[in-house]
Amino acid sequence: MTKRFTGIAASPGIAMAKAYRLHQDHYVPAPDKVTDTDIETARFRQAVEAAKQELEQIRMMTEQKMGASKAEIFEAHLLLLEDPDLIDAIIEQIVNESINAEYALHEVAGGFIDTLLSMDNELLRERAADVRDVSGRVMSLLRGVSYAAVSAINEPCVLVSEDLTPSDTAQLNLDYVLGFITVVGSRTSHSAIMARSLEIPAIVGAGAAAADIETGTMIVMDAILGTVLVDPSETELETFQARKVAYEERKGELRKLLDQPTVTQDGHRVELASNIGSVEDLQKVLANGAEGIGLFRTEFLYMGRSTIPSEEEQFQVYKHVLERMNNKPVVIRTLDIGGDKELPYMKLPAESNPFLGLRAVRLCLDQQEMFRTQLRALLRASSYGQLKIMFPMIAVTGELREAKRLLQEEKEKLIGEGVPVSDKLEVGIMIEVPAAALAADFLAKEVDFFSIGTNDLIQYTMAADRMNENVAYLYQPCHPSILRLIRMVIQAAEKEGKWVGMCGEMAGDETAIPILLGLGLHEFSMSASSILPARALIKGLSHQEWAGYTEEILAMSTQESIHAFVKQKTRSDLA
Amino acid sequence: MTKRFTGIAASPGIAMAKAYRLHQDHYVPAPDKVTDTDIETARFRQAVEAAKQELEQIRMMTEQKMGASKAEIFEAHLLLLEDPDLIDAIIEQIVNESINAEYALHEVAGGFIDTLLSMDNELLRERAADVRDVSGRVMSLLRGVSYAAVSAINEPCVLVSEDLTPSDTAQLNLDYVLGFITVVGSRTSHSAIMARSLEIPAIVGAGAAAADIETGTMIVMDAILGTVLVDPSETELETFQARKVAYEERKGELRKLLDQPTVTQDGHRVELASNIGSVEDLQKVLANGAEGIGLFRTEFLYMGRSTIPSEEEQFQVYKHVLERMNNKPVVIRTLDIGGDKELPYMKLPAESNPFLGLRAVRLCLDQQEMFRTQLRALLRASSYGQLKIMFPMIAVTGELREAKRLLQEEKEKLIGEGVPVSDKLEVGIMIEVPAAALAADFLAKEVDFFSIGTNDLIQYTMAADRMNENVAYLYQPCHPSILRLIRMVIQAAEKEGKWVGMCGEMAGDETAIPILLGLGLHEFSMSASSILPARALIKGLSHQEWAGYTEEILAMSTQESIHAFVKQKTRSDLA
Repeated sequence: MTKRFTGIAASPGIAMAKAYRLHQDHYVPAPDKVTDTDIETARFRQAVEAAKQELEQIRMMTEQKMGASKAEIFEAHLLLLEDPDLIDAIIEQIVNESINAEYALHEVAGGFIDTLLSMDNELLRERAADVRDVSGRVMSLLRGVSYAAVSAINEPCVLVSEDLTPSDTAQLNLDYVLGFITVVGSRTSHSAIMARSLEIPAIVGAGAAAADIETGTMIVMDAILGTVLVDPSETELETFQARKVAYEERKGELRKLLDQPTVTQDGHRVELASNIGSVEDLQKVLANGAEGIGLFRTEFLYMGRSTIPSEEEQFQVYKHVLERMNNKPVVIRTLDIGGDKELPYMKLPAESNPFLGLRAVRLCLDQQEMFRTQLRALLRASSYGQLKIMFPMIAVTGELREAKRLLQEEKEKLIGEGVPVSDKLEVGIMIEVPAAALAADFLAKEVDFFSIGTNDLIQYTMAADRMNENVAYLYQPCHPSILRLIRMVIQAAEKEGKWVGMCGEMAGDETAIPILLGLGLHEFSMSASSILPARALIKGLSHQEWAGYTEEILAMSTQESIHAFVKQKTRSDLA
Repeated sequence: MTKRFTGIAASPGIAMAKAYRLHQDHYVPAPDKVTDTDIETARFRQAVEAAKQELEQIRMMTEQKMGASKAEIFEAHLLLLEDPDLIDAIIEQIVNESINAEYALHEVAGGFIDTLLSMDNELLRERAADVRDVSGRVMSLLRGVSYAAVSAINEPCVLVSEDLTPSDTAQLNLDYVLGFITVVGSRTSHSAIMARSLEIPAIVGAGAAAADIETGTMIVMDAILGTVLVDPSETELETFQARKVAYEERKGELRKLLDQPTVTQDGHRVELASNIGSVEDLQKVLANGAEGIGLFRTEFLYMGRSTIPSEEEQFQVYKHVLERMNNKPVVIRTLDIGGDKELPYMKLPAESNPFLGLRAVRLCLDQQEMFRTQLRALLRASSYGQLKIMFPMIAVTGELREAKRLLQEEKEKLIGEGVPVSDKLEVGIMIEVPAAALAADFLAKEVDFFSIGTNDLIQYTMAADRMNENVAYLYQPCHPSILRLIRMVIQAAEKEGKWVGMCGEMAGDETAIPILLGLGLHEFSMSASSILPARALIKGLSHQEWAGYTEEILAMSTQESIHAFVKQKTRSDLA
């Protein structure tokens, strides 16, 4: 009989093939005394050098296939192989204890991993996977066995494994690996992010049921729903084959909407824009028919380095993005860092509740030199396209006025220096703090636009950390309290003739879109892969009809009843 | 010339007298080899035993003067003197290094204090002061010098010191010490809390200027404003003498309001209730004319122990409070713990943002057996007075319904067992999550009352940790966004005929009170010492007039303009 289980749909698509079970061995070396520690140390150093060469190759290959930002992880891996805390400590143990390299590696790397896993910091915990990947590679080289079995795959298959390391994922041969399923992992783990980038179906965090699958078992994976069928019947195979065909047909249909405007059945036009986190994302934005960039996160410019990026360096990046977007609107958000997103060179104090701390514009107003540098770079770039500057985490008008004052000062200085600054430059704010939504009528008078950041707005309105699984049940985008705040914001902006966008995940959610359309949202900014499905959805809706439902929806007391209402009124083509 | 400086007004009042400068010596012992470590160890043990006897005396004296809860700190001190991490480590050092006890004590206690001070946890950092106090006492006993110089004071004075330890404060002779000023400290430090309990004027955190004052210098301290005058002129002395007389007259006037109802000039009646954190606070509640208890925090029952309190133990406490309040309303809040307030025996996971985590009712719904025990104790107590049960941190209706379901189940069980349960028992919720305020219309249909918890409501609405100094500028009770939420809550409740209280600090704030009166708040719950001033203020106001100002106030865009408006319309008798 068919066995059926579910996991997290991490990258959409449907695949059916025999399973290839990747057995990641948990090799535990025994301690073994060596007589000549010089020879043992040399053997270890050779393995490290060989690992570096392999990683450099993987890095280059990844850069070609997936772009520079996806390849960055391997630079981090290469750095680990030069980290004295790891490498020197292993050599020291070999020498001091006259012990074999395998054992010393296992002990030191294991201690490293345990320390990282015990940290109360998500990013550091994720680093444990990197240490495990790198030390596993060195261990294989020491033992003379092959590390990455994935490169040996030469038949079409669905790959099943405990987890996939970044180096595994980068080396997948997509001619054979039609999709993958992992026992652990989340939507934001490395393997999930890479799967979306490779556009290969992936289901992660599937748990014990996935761990039982052996090589050769027939598998159907539906990574739209997150469903896996083990040993499917003929009928089931046919059903999913038909679903796969329909899915691919639909993908073809969606491609026809690439250059079309986003207009409802009754002629109401909205803008579909994309969120990006680095320059490498531009390719995907343009390939998916985005009408602009609704959120350019500038944090990547500041991360993974030892100093603040210079004005010139930032200017070149902003100019590049504006030029590539060819006069389409580009909303660039000023630095949103602090608390959980740390910059080692800024030496920020540890906070008990970083999400409620000195972050984003609060930090920028505190560190004005750094902020002014970014503002100058943005102002200089403004003449190369349709730039809109956006301040994050504004809570009260005082903060907005201070940020605008600094911008104005830098603008006047630049003009004084003869540097051109666009006179069409717009200045707006994120609405992500409940206080800002509640005072949107005042704020609307002092900005050109709002963009609602629903991820944070929901987190604060519900008082529930969006990264904390224990309170995940409170993350309810369509809760009436959230929808009421959104309505307040849109009504306040319309009264002042300003436009309102949304750049949280909610903007790309197909249950939320009809409601947001009815509420009068002007711009929807989402991940590039959501744009065409959203355009197809909106083209089938009537703005008037959904505007007419607003009162009825906002009078419902729970998200469940609102979801049911939307589902009843819409028909999803693929569900 | 008069020198003038300010500090934090920690306990109100005015005092003028010569300064008594408490020189807390920073004795640093030199290492000194001892020949017989047995003798040295015995000498140390004797000093520890003598310190225990002194502390036990102070503990008993404090319990008599200030109640059991204020004496708890000395139980903690006594436990420190039995802590092997401290005591055994010192003895070990004496023995292993053949070193003098003073030096070993200094080294070990110093390391302990440094570790505590480096913690990212306010409570642990405060523990450093306790270790310093206890080890200072043992050091004095070892050296044969007197530890607490405060007990030697025999002339009227204003005490000036770096800081006051809990044991110093407990031993103050109030016939002579008319007030105190400290260089360090905050409104929530032990010495500040004890000063309020002793009703003695105190200014803390006064900084370097206070450190310069020597014994014999004439001092005026105004602990209403937080101002200190050093070497005042005759005219200044007269001015402050007059202010002191006015202050004491006003205190006398306020006492006349003790048993009067709280009614505005135009006959609108509201209820002034008190917040309490333990049974010991009841005395002060009754002595200050509270019309009820608006918030009884039950956390103290669960803290400082190794197991969950039994149903019987809780029942006795709730019954006692209801009986003492003699049929006045008593709102008891169910357990509000989790995240920052930890219970060691519950083994809760560490959270990255505890204020946005699994706390209060979220935790109780997760740990239902513990919650049911508290609900049963409350239900059993209900027939001994006018009990109102309140659930904290409700965000969505689902949580409220689940909590009510558990309450109903326990009620039916008790009735089945023949235990009487009051049929006048009310059930309400705290409104402290923005989502709850925004959906108050739905929630009002399912409760008997609301109580607005402004401390948390402001924190979440502003997305600013109220314990984080870096974002303290965002803690704005009279910001229009906060006032708008409060209005939503009151209007929603009135439509359903339910009453609304407020139990955050804002309810006792004299700038906020006129606005809240105008918004139609029914019950104001505050610290006991604020009740009489609030009653005096409200008796001078017109409800109609302030209701008429509401629209005008809510149309102002900043807290500053709202504050200015209120100040202009009211006249404070003493400012």
